[in-house]
Amino acid sequence: MGSGSAANGGGGGTARVPMPPARPFLETLGGNMKETFLPDDPFRVVRRERGCGRRAAAALRYVFPFMEWAPSYTLGTLKSDLIAGITIASLAIPQGISYAKLANLPPVLGLYSSFVPPLVYAMMGSSRDLAVGTVAVASLLIGSMLSEEVSAAEDPALYLHVALTATFFAGVFQALLGVFRLGFIVDFLSHATIVGFMGGAATVVCLQQLKGMFGLDHFTTATDLVSVMRSWRWESVVMGCGFLFFLLITRFFSKRRPRFFWVSAAAPLASVIIGSLLVYLTHAENHGIQVIGYLKKGLNPPSATSLNFSSPYMMLALKTGIITGVIALAEGIAVGRSFAMFKNYHIDGNKEMIAFGTMNIVGSLTSCYLTTGPFSRSAVNYNAGCKTAMSNVIMSVAVMITLLFLTPLFHYTPLVVLSAIIMSAMLGLIDYPAAVHLWQVDKVDFCVCLGAYLGVVFGSVEIGLVVAVGISILRVLLFVARPRTTVLGNIPNTMIYRRMDQYTAAQRVPGVLVLRVDSPIYFTNASYLRERIARWIDDEEDQCKEKGEMQIQYVVLDMGAVGSIDTSGTSMLDELRKTLDRRGLQIVLANPGSEIMKKLDSSKVLEAIGHEWIFPTVGEAVAECDFVMHSQKPGMVMGSGAPHENLV
Amino acid sequence: MGSGSAANGGGGGTARVPMPPARPFLETLGGNMKETFLPDDPFRVVRRERGCGRRAAAALRYVFPFMEWAPSYTLGTLKSDLIAGITIASLAIPQGISYAKLANLPPVLGLYSSFVPPLVYAMMGSSRDLAVGTVAVASLLIGSMLSEEVSAAEDPALYLHVALTATFFAGVFQALLGVFRLGFIVDFLSHATIVGFMGGAATVVCLQQLKGMFGLDHFTTATDLVSVMRSWRWESVVMGCGFLFFLLITRFFSKRRPRFFWVSAAAPLASVIIGSLLVYLTHAENHGIQVIGYLKKGLNPPSATSLNFSSPYMMLALKTGIITGVIALAEGIAVGRSFAMFKNYHIDGNKEMIAFGTMNIVGSLTSCYLTTGPFSRSAVNYNAGCKTAMSNVIMSVAVMITLLFLTPLFHYTPLVVLSAIIMSAMLGLIDYPAAVHLWQVDKVDFCVCLGAYLGVVFGSVEIGLVVAVGISILRVLLFVARPRTTVLGNIPNTMIYRRMDQYTAAQRVPGVLVLRVDSPIYFTNASYLRERIARWIDDEEDQCKEKGEMQIQYVVLDMGAVGSIDTSGTSMLDELRKTLDRRGLQIVLANPGSEIMKKLDSSKVLEAIGHEWIFPTVGEAVAECDFVMHSQKPGMVMGSGAPHENLV
Repeated sequence: MGSGSAANGGGGGTARVPMPPARPFLETLGGNMKETFLPDDPFRVVRRERGCGRRAAAALRYVFPFMEWAPSYTLGTLKSDLIAGITIASLAIPQGISYAKLANLPPVLGLYSSFVPPLVYAMMGSSRDLAVGTVAVASLLIGSMLSEEVSAAEDPALYLHVALTATFFAGVFQALLGVFRLGFIVDFLSHATIVGFMGGAATVVCLQQLKGMFGLDHFTTATDLVSVMRSWRWESVVMGCGFLFFLLITRFFSKRRPRFFWVSAAAPLASVIIGSLLVYLTHAENHGIQVIGYLKKGLNPPSATSLNFSSPYMMLALKTGIITGVIALAEGIAVGRSFAMFKNYHIDGNKEMIAFGTMNIVGSLTSCYLTTGPFSRSAVNYNAGCKTAMSNVIMSVAVMITLLFLTPLFHYTPLVVLSAIIMSAMLGLIDYPAAVHLWQVDKVDFCVCLGAYLGVVFGSVEIGLVVAVGISILRVLLFVARPRTTVLGNIPNTMIYRRMDQYTAAQRVPGVLVLRVDSPIYFTNASYLRERIARWIDDEEDQCKEKGEMQIQYVVLDMGAVGSIDTSGTSMLDELRKTLDRRGLQIVLANPGSEIMKKLDSSKVLEAIGHEWIFPTVGEAVAECDFVMHSQKPGMVMGSGAPHENLV
Repeated sequence: MGSGSAANGGGGGTARVPMPPARPFLETLGGNMKETFLPDDPFRVVRRERGCGRRAAAALRYVFPFMEWAPSYTLGTLKSDLIAGITIASLAIPQGISYAKLANLPPVLGLYSSFVPPLVYAMMGSSRDLAVGTVAVASLLIGSMLSEEVSAAEDPALYLHVALTATFFAGVFQALLGVFRLGFIVDFLSHATIVGFMGGAATVVCLQQLKGMFGLDHFTTATDLVSVMRSWRWESVVMGCGFLFFLLITRFFSKRRPRFFWVSAAAPLASVIIGSLLVYLTHAENHGIQVIGYLKKGLNPPSATSLNFSSPYMMLALKTGIITGVIALAEGIAVGRSFAMFKNYHIDGNKEMIAFGTMNIVGSLTSCYLTTGPFSRSAVNYNAGCKTAMSNVIMSVAVMITLLFLTPLFHYTPLVVLSAIIMSAMLGLIDYPAAVHLWQVDKVDFCVCLGAYLGVVFGSVEIGLVVAVGISILRVLLFVARPRTTVLGNIPNTMIYRRMDQYTAAQRVPGVLVLRVDSPIYFTNASYLRERIARWIDDEEDQCKEKGEMQIQYVVLDMGAVGSIDTSGTSMLDELRKTLDRRGLQIVLANPGSEIMKKLDSSKVLEAIGHEWIFPTVGEAVAECDFVMHSQKPGMVMGSGAPHENLV
């Protein structure tokens, strides 16, 4: 190590931090754009191939991942997918009908939505475990947002048209996000937000369903006990509670013994069958038990002409589409990613968005409403041992058979069973352990979660979302506006500099204040940093005075963690230099990155500070300060003369 | 250095990165709140004193800085302030009248606004150089925002009331920002935004004034030359151009020779006097030259009862107040800070906000509209040698005398002279060199500037502001969503690790990939980082395959620059660990800060990774990996066995 150290001796004078070579503006721009929008370099698979034909094939395989697995599809894989597909179909049918009710849509739409979208996803999606279908929270959102302006009871046709239009917009928005590689927008819904938001939505849905189950919809204004008792339908309450208990028990059982996952997966369909049989045999529909009634037979009717782009409802559909689209994306992408991680394959978030978007656009043209990848159904799919997206195709075929032949069987299905199915699914969304984990690890994240929860429960779904995203973004902005600065101290007998608040061994260097800035220097934090650095210097001078030590003469800024700087930042450094100059202090920069060097150079701040005061390491910077202060070899002062040996 | 190195030998096992001691939640919260909201520790002056009385006095001095300088005020200082005060008064009177016209307010309000607010500021402001008064851009903003809903021509009384109410709200908002120490909100208006915004506003105002000067207001629909010529008032054009030329010449002269600052400072008043005399002597008011006319004599009437808190206009006043209040603050604080920097004293931004807020609240009760610290007037004040805020008091007295006795003299002042004064001030706001500087140093900042400029010129003042703030915030969010990761390489014969893209000497370590993350790991960038790190590993593996080198077995993450982490971040690290595990790679963390260690510990991720894979430095981490890979002393592998000798 020894010989290279000579350059580090006294005097300085040469800039030892290399200045990056000038690059053409467009090249820099291109590089930055690529880092920003194509971080995962998705076209690598195409670029690797040679020849036009092979590249086209690779591109096709990129857009339609089923071309990747279809050629090598075997009978063994089909068997696995068949079991998984039938299992999720048995879950999809009752859930589809139930969730359509949440969205105030005709029950048959839930079945339609489990037929076409899974086929589209099977072709375009890159997850092997995701099971496509409608989800409770998005259904609830559609229901509550649309009901503000259109009544599903008074004008069901208009309501349906607006809902389909919203689905169309959601699909277009999702696909656009994917095409323009703006997937990071979904990242702004943090895990904490989603936990709180889902929990809140689940609470609201459960209360709603309970109200329905206890027949409180029929509440009269009379509050005497007799009226209340009359408005109760005990048959409904007993049936609802019974099935809810059954569903919760099976879920609990399957959770404890993952091998019996199919018990909880089959429970909803079993409940529907038992409930329908009970009603059919006892004619309970005449005793206050509401039933689904007539369900239209036949496959999805085309609905392109139902899309409503006319003025008063278009904005409503657009707003609903964008919000529900983002929420649905967040759930679908998170689900896809987690299962991909379990099985160790890669999912391209932006490509998934295009798949979801296409699925919803096609869905909106074939009488389907918003679909995504629900967690519960995908977990069942995964547990049932699915191997490829073929399980979605199997589910789709099962739903098709139901639509073609079995819809009359649902005539006697009691609504309370659907309520029980919804509630049992919802109770699974309230994730206490996650909230406890948030509290333990990060209090701010817990606040975000709680904000989302309370916002949804006491305000509305939208308010909860706004509160949570607002807190999250405020946190990011606060972080950017208030970066940390720390004082570094020397580890005795080395040239290492470490945070004095973390490493107790670190000691002050007399005459030199070493500060480390932990963030890019931007317009949002430039004046804060100026003030904070001034306060560090004041504090240090006070301390020196109290202890009668040598006053500081150098302020070394460790720029190692400063990733970027803008013009406000360069001006700040220049102002800091002038202020320090006036106080008789010299500013020294250590370890600036190449982008920083470039900007400091083009703004002439580098020149003003002086090339000789820029060092590649804090150790060298302090050694030089020491050398000048004592006018002798730095090695003799510091105890150890070897250069390049400090760390930051 | 040698002896400490033994601990670094094989095996690992002990966590050498210290875990911070657990601190009570409230203490942590308090510390964080202090860092966030009181970075400059403003109460230090009070805390330093002993005894209640002395502390109360210190607190009073803190709120009313004039108590600091008043006791030691001398005749010499008074002389300096007297000269400065009279100079700025000669500028304030014509500017005040002109800017009131921009805001569609009666000219006398400009004089009122130069009487009360400077007195308030002299007591509460901490800048010694700031000269208080109305500013062109805020006046323009008030004019354009209020005119959208209230017509100044049709209902001048209502317009005045709404303008005063807006001033009141601006004051309240400013004071609240100061009290809650939210000064950083002003920082979100970056320098680039302000340059573009001011330039755009100046362009709009100049075009407006030119239109007025050329009499284009009287344009008929007839476009034949005779009508156009008739609508021209050549007297007006000649007079306007003459005075504009005079003002620009004097400004140019004063700029070249700073000693003659008073030439340009006195030029507006001289123009007003000469113009008024000319009109009086030639009776030009009968030849198409519009004059100010009657100006009410007497001091500010109280206006508390004029404040309009009734429904339809309150929201307008609130919106106008908040926007103009922030713009005015941004200008005032920037001006105060720059002069404080020149003279090397400290300004507390939040305290200044309270001073500005109080000044505008009191102003709104005494018939003044929005005031702040204009740059031009403060520069004149500074050049004239002001010593304390007393110069504001002198100006205030001069304006008072004008209001009491001299208003009739302005009867014949031609409006074109006021237009010329406005235009000459506005041309000074178009800051080409700053825009060129932005282009050279930072292209994004230039885009922000250009966006603000074009938005103001082709849209409206508000659109320009929204565009510029939007781009700025988007940039911050993009930065947070897309942090930089870089590969570090070893500098041969040392244990130093540096960015491979910056230092050409840095070389790959066989079998180990060293990555450095340059930002906190948050929900906004967690999934990006996971993907980007996966791509780094893929790239590295491809390269190794091509070159036939040893495949990587360790991924060392340098966490030195990771200032903070949230629950999404800890989950990301855990997922990364699992993914790497499955690929047969070991994750190693180097140099995590104390906050990171704490969060990793409470989320159990530390346990999952294993304490033995956390190292204080990259060098030690790589040495350990090497040791395990070769099962021999790391010192023999790396060429240099001394520990603690790397830098990041």
